[in-house]
Amino acid sequence: MRKVSVASILALVSSQAIARDDLMMSARQIFRPIPKVLPAIRDNPVTPEKVELGKKLFFDPRISVSGIISCNTCHNLGTGGVDAGPTSVGHGWQKGPRRAPTVYNSVFNVAQFWDGRAPDLKAQAKGPVQASAEMNATPDHVTKTLNSMDDYVGMFKQAFPRDTPSVSFDNFAKAIEAFESTLTTPAAPFDQYLNGNASALNDQQKAGLKLFMDKGCSSCHRGINIGGQDYFPFGVVGKPDAKLLPTADKGRFVVTNAVGDEYVFRVAPLRNVALRAPYFHSGQVWSLEEAVGIMGEVQLGTKLDDKERSDIAAFLNALTGHLPNIEYPMLPTRTNETPPPSLGR
Amino acid sequence: MRKVSVASILALVSSQAIARDDLMMSARQIFRPIPKVLPAIRDNPVTPEKVELGKKLFFDPRISVSGIISCNTCHNLGTGGVDAGPTSVGHGWQKGPRRAPTVYNSVFNVAQFWDGRAPDLKAQAKGPVQASAEMNATPDHVTKTLNSMDDYVGMFKQAFPRDTPSVSFDNFAKAIEAFESTLTTPAAPFDQYLNGNASALNDQQKAGLKLFMDKGCSSCHRGINIGGQDYFPFGVVGKPDAKLLPTADKGRFVVTNAVGDEYVFRVAPLRNVALRAPYFHSGQVWSLEEAVGIMGEVQLGTKLDDKERSDIAAFLNALTGHLPNIEYPMLPTRTNETPPPSLGR
Repeated sequence: MRKVSVASILALVSSQAIARDDLMMSARQIFRPIPKVLPAIRDNPVTPEKVELGKKLFFDPRISVSGIISCNTCHNLGTGGVDAGPTSVGHGWQKGPRRAPTVYNSVFNVAQFWDGRAPDLKAQAKGPVQASAEMNATPDHVTKTLNSMDDYVGMFKQAFPRDTPSVSFDNFAKAIEAFESTLTTPAAPFDQYLNGNASALNDQQKAGLKLFMDKGCSSCHRGINIGGQDYFPFGVVGKPDAKLLPTADKGRFVVTNAVGDEYVFRVAPLRNVALRAPYFHSGQVWSLEEAVGIMGEVQLGTKLDDKERSDIAAFLNALTGHLPNIEYPMLPTRTNETPPPSLGR
Repeated sequence: MRKVSVASILALVSSQAIARDDLMMSARQIFRPIPKVLPAIRDNPVTPEKVELGKKLFFDPRISVSGIISCNTCHNLGTGGVDAGPTSVGHGWQKGPRRAPTVYNSVFNVAQFWDGRAPDLKAQAKGPVQASAEMNATPDHVTKTLNSMDDYVGMFKQAFPRDTPSVSFDNFAKAIEAFESTLTTPAAPFDQYLNGNASALNDQQKAGLKLFMDKGCSSCHRGINIGGQDYFPFGVVGKPDAKLLPTADKGRFVVTNAVGDEYVFRVAPLRNVALRAPYFHSGQVWSLEEAVGIMGEVQLGTKLDDKERSDIAAFLNALTGHLPNIEYPMLPTRTNETPPPSLGR
């Protein structure tokens, strides 16, 4: 038996501890845990009354002109804040062009939608309601519907006591924004790790985290949301398959009209990404490992081997946080003044 | 000032009390309050494990082949256990032929569906899943989907520990039945009245209750569910407008093939009816007063005046019970083995 001195064992343990701390220190430079205090919202102070109203609106299918589709239809809070994919289905069974982004932690994104065309959640909330391939409604349909039910009118008065009228399309969107701002998922293993608990990630997840930083993933996927902050072309190095990047959808170009923004998208936020297959704006990739491999190739010019992809996927699994408890809302009852559903286009 | 003896006042009060008690006593002969103890289910002992599993299944859109439609889509627990109507919309935006019946208190019905073709809720649960115009799935799709997610497999083992395999289409239906059997809405004003609280109904509601019994409504709408026990033709006395009774839908005739069952339907259960417009199996009547008037004409041969219709509607509003608190379920995460959604027909 070889003799091993106590001093050499201590040295070994200590160097491992330092290595671990190095990883944690590096990670803390790039990522931030989900804050314990809910974030403040620009031009829209969050109150319990707004949140409760916003929850009802989020789950109310009568906002759509068909009476069938609610925000929760495509941003299902029971399945990671997204639908089954690949892209969403809306009014008249029309297929939307892009994968539903998650509402969970969306408050931490720099802007909303895959192309960042909405500066915040209140602007975002007005989009799908009016999109003919989604809820196919109008602001007039929304306010007529809400004004037809005294319970809603009362809740709007409570939530927006200074506004006359309190029921408006703007306030509808603000209430939804207030609710959505509460949809954060703290306490993922990675948050615990960033907060100093070195054992919150297992060895494979740490190896994945190291790869995620060393290979360059974290130059875009960074911050609280591990993404959601910047805009980059899908295909920095290599062009993705047309199935993943349909040529007709030029991404942020449509927003800015800048040639440099062709096929540019907001960096996908990766919180709870393991809950949210299929991946990419086109929703054509069903496995996290495969998605990781594609990103390595087209964004970084790196062919990741099986172990690397699997380690990074293990790390991404550590981004699954604590989903909030949501009591399913009982909605106000329609009246004879409520617009009846309309299924036609 | 006229002199009024104490004795005559007492006599007046007493006769009013007796009149009130007479009404209550008559009502107790015909109706029963929602029991405090949840009902037992034939061939399916209700356990907390089954109820929790059944709740997830009820809300899981991945049961449908499109991945979009859950039981809750048409039986929305936030809007009285029904959808916006008139009739339901399913796979491919197909319009179903009938109004969605409510799941609330459905455990108290003698049989399920408007035509009673399912003897119980476990048989009912298998219908819409497989109907091509509803969820358009197969038992194979359901069990494949459930078996692809370990969390579901574990929950089935807990809920059906004696069955091998525990995941089956039968057990899927039994779990949903167990959940639905908990969806009762006790403590409506009318329940409180039947339980002896004479002031639980106001005077108009009592007048409505009296009319409801005197005019004959209660010969069919009786029992715990104020209906749901018997089968009668829609149009006992007069033929309803074809808009309300489309000639193509012969009701229970399709179930029994008996000539006497043409245009026969299960008597509509009236619990929470005020939450559930539009009315009738065709879903073409949006006002409760109008529905009451139609029933008077075509079922009883009675033209009810405005006050009578309004009084009966007031009584029907007293059938709205306490809706349960439902925590929105967080669903198991899909895996690479989960069948992807399919939108085609």
